[in-house]
Amino acid sequence: MRILILGGDGYLGWPTAMHLSANGHEVAVADNYLRRQICRDEDVEPLYETLNLTRRAQLWNNLSGFDIPVFIGDLMQWDFVEELFHKFTPDCIVHYAEQPAAPYSMLNRRAATLTLQNNLMVTANVIFAVREFCPQAHIVKLGTMGEYGTPNIDIEEGWLDVEHKGRKETFLFPRQAGSLYHTTKIMDTDLLWFYVRTWGMRVTDLMQGPVYGLFTDENESHEQLLPFFNYDELFGTVLNRFVVQAVAGYPLTVYGKGGQTRGYLNIKDTLNCVRLAAETPARQGELRIFNQLTETFSVNELAERVRHVGSQMGIKVDIQSVENPRKEAENHYYNPTHTGLKDLGLKPNILTDQTLEQLIEFVMRYKEKIRNGQIYRNVKWG
Amino acid sequence: MRILILGGDGYLGWPTAMHLSANGHEVAVADNYLRRQICRDEDVEPLYETLNLTRRAQLWNNLSGFDIPVFIGDLMQWDFVEELFHKFTPDCIVHYAEQPAAPYSMLNRRAATLTLQNNLMVTANVIFAVREFCPQAHIVKLGTMGEYGTPNIDIEEGWLDVEHKGRKETFLFPRQAGSLYHTTKIMDTDLLWFYVRTWGMRVTDLMQGPVYGLFTDENESHEQLLPFFNYDELFGTVLNRFVVQAVAGYPLTVYGKGGQTRGYLNIKDTLNCVRLAAETPARQGELRIFNQLTETFSVNELAERVRHVGSQMGIKVDIQSVENPRKEAENHYYNPTHTGLKDLGLKPNILTDQTLEQLIEFVMRYKEKIRNGQIYRNVKWG
Repeated sequence: MRILILGGDGYLGWPTAMHLSANGHEVAVADNYLRRQICRDEDVEPLYETLNLTRRAQLWNNLSGFDIPVFIGDLMQWDFVEELFHKFTPDCIVHYAEQPAAPYSMLNRRAATLTLQNNLMVTANVIFAVREFCPQAHIVKLGTMGEYGTPNIDIEEGWLDVEHKGRKETFLFPRQAGSLYHTTKIMDTDLLWFYVRTWGMRVTDLMQGPVYGLFTDENESHEQLLPFFNYDELFGTVLNRFVVQAVAGYPLTVYGKGGQTRGYLNIKDTLNCVRLAAETPARQGELRIFNQLTETFSVNELAERVRHVGSQMGIKVDIQSVENPRKEAENHYYNPTHTGLKDLGLKPNILTDQTLEQLIEFVMRYKEKIRNGQIYRNVKWG
Repeated sequence: MRILILGGDGYLGWPTAMHLSANGHEVAVADNYLRRQICRDEDVEPLYETLNLTRRAQLWNNLSGFDIPVFIGDLMQWDFVEELFHKFTPDCIVHYAEQPAAPYSMLNRRAATLTLQNNLMVTANVIFAVREFCPQAHIVKLGTMGEYGTPNIDIEEGWLDVEHKGRKETFLFPRQAGSLYHTTKIMDTDLLWFYVRTWGMRVTDLMQGPVYGLFTDENESHEQLLPFFNYDELFGTVLNRFVVQAVAGYPLTVYGKGGQTRGYLNIKDTLNCVRLAAETPARQGELRIFNQLTETFSVNELAERVRHVGSQMGIKVDIQSVENPRKEAENHYYNPTHTGLKDLGLKPNILTDQTLEQLIEFVMRYKEKIRNGQIYRNVKWG
């Protein structure tokens, strides 16, 4: 299958590209290095340097023999989109090409505008490109569990059957998110759903929880194949951040009461989920939604897990509650359904002490590079 | 009350400006003439020429003594927004500043992109401007009944109580629209709802049905105070279009079976609704939603009403079913609640034969100006 990965330079984009090419697919990647640029601008660069996408693709080609063409450009610009889809007309598009950070989207007006404009216009251009150049192609869109927020009822997999005054209807599960970034993902879903109904497009929307980890089957062979690893407040995800904080001797920053519960997954499972979704496409005219998580944890539980494994490794880990800069419920009901991807064959990699130990060991090698100043920045929602 | 009307040149914007100034408010208007430009570009200019906004404001000032400052500029540009809110810091913003036409949004990729970008970025800029310059100000946002689509259950006023597996939650009423334009309004609501929750903004979202008519208390005195009147497929609304078609001897174009039912209102009621919403603001941290319609009609019923009144006036009106260019249900359940605005004091102007007669008589004076070629253009959804 010809698979085009948009946002192929990202934390998930590049590992996905290697994984799909190692699994027999013809893969191309596109990126505009937006995230690298923002990380430099905001002085929150990842833990270690990463080769640019072209050089990583060359390295992967040398090691594996698989060729991944690289296209560098901005998907908000139609002339780039047009050229890209002419040069590599895909059967499947994996769309990661969004500004992915909730705290960044809340930083200031310019960051908010960039997030809104980039995420919506890129998704729109992907839709228009599929319509024009490859109407049968399947769009695999990375959504987020954050679209649902934390409702007081079970979170179903994308859809909700409602009975009201004796009549029935099935709706997209009602969504209300906790950041501007997450709100742009709601908008993406609405946009895709409209064109699925109107143009009969085939779309899978993967409502993904926060991802942790670094290691995949494909990057074992060479460390320069690893994805970049953000541990800052803007772009780092919580468990990765906690690991770095533990290594740095920086108390784990639990926001408020720490009862915030979310669905998490190992980066390996992200790759498997995306591959499974791509290999079993949605039908023409179908918006297929999967909740992409393997386990739920509260922030307190994650902090305790890191403290526990740390202490086994002789690292003293402190946990500190800080005033919650976000507007969110700190104690809430949370029960998301997530059976769709398992039905497609997903075998979850659950969070083991060994997983955490391996990650902590790796980060310890970069201990001197950790800059405490970028761990906590206190971007306030309110 | 200091009220800033964004999109003050529009079919509803200008009548609203006069109405609010005549009712004791200090009013300013902003517009970038986007709609005039699109109508010229697409060769679908209104039935008669309309003075530019500055000259209409001068005329209104001469006739009424009320002063309405005019600001011409693009609300997508932050420097204009900043200047505007410095020069006229409002207590209330009435936000009409969007590309308002469903068929235009489905015309081609450029029109879709313009609609998405304009509508979202202007709404975002309004939110950021209120946050920065007048955090207590009340935003009255024009939404659309089209956000709800045509669900198989009663449409409640903005919110839906859901009971699911023994637990309860109240959600924004689930929405799925029938055009890209209507989808951008869903996105607006999501964006406003997020910032209402996060920043405690005060917002009223008016889910308005299609509006008909021309005459208001304020434009009786001078014909050059009338709003522009589109009868083309792109920008005309259905009843206004049918009146022009009747006068032109052009069969009323009913799409498909004509069972499509929507909630309608007289332009006078739009003004009253907006004024009532502005004069009784939403609370801090409240997203208040009203369904802004007074009666529901199917397209067939509207066509029959025009035929009936036409025949009384000696005009033979034909009705012709044409293939439906849209993707929509042609027979469906439709039962929207609309009590909120009545509770605020709205006294509906229902559709009478006399209303239609007055409109037909007026359009007859411009009969020679009707260009049949722009009535039906067949912009296809699919």
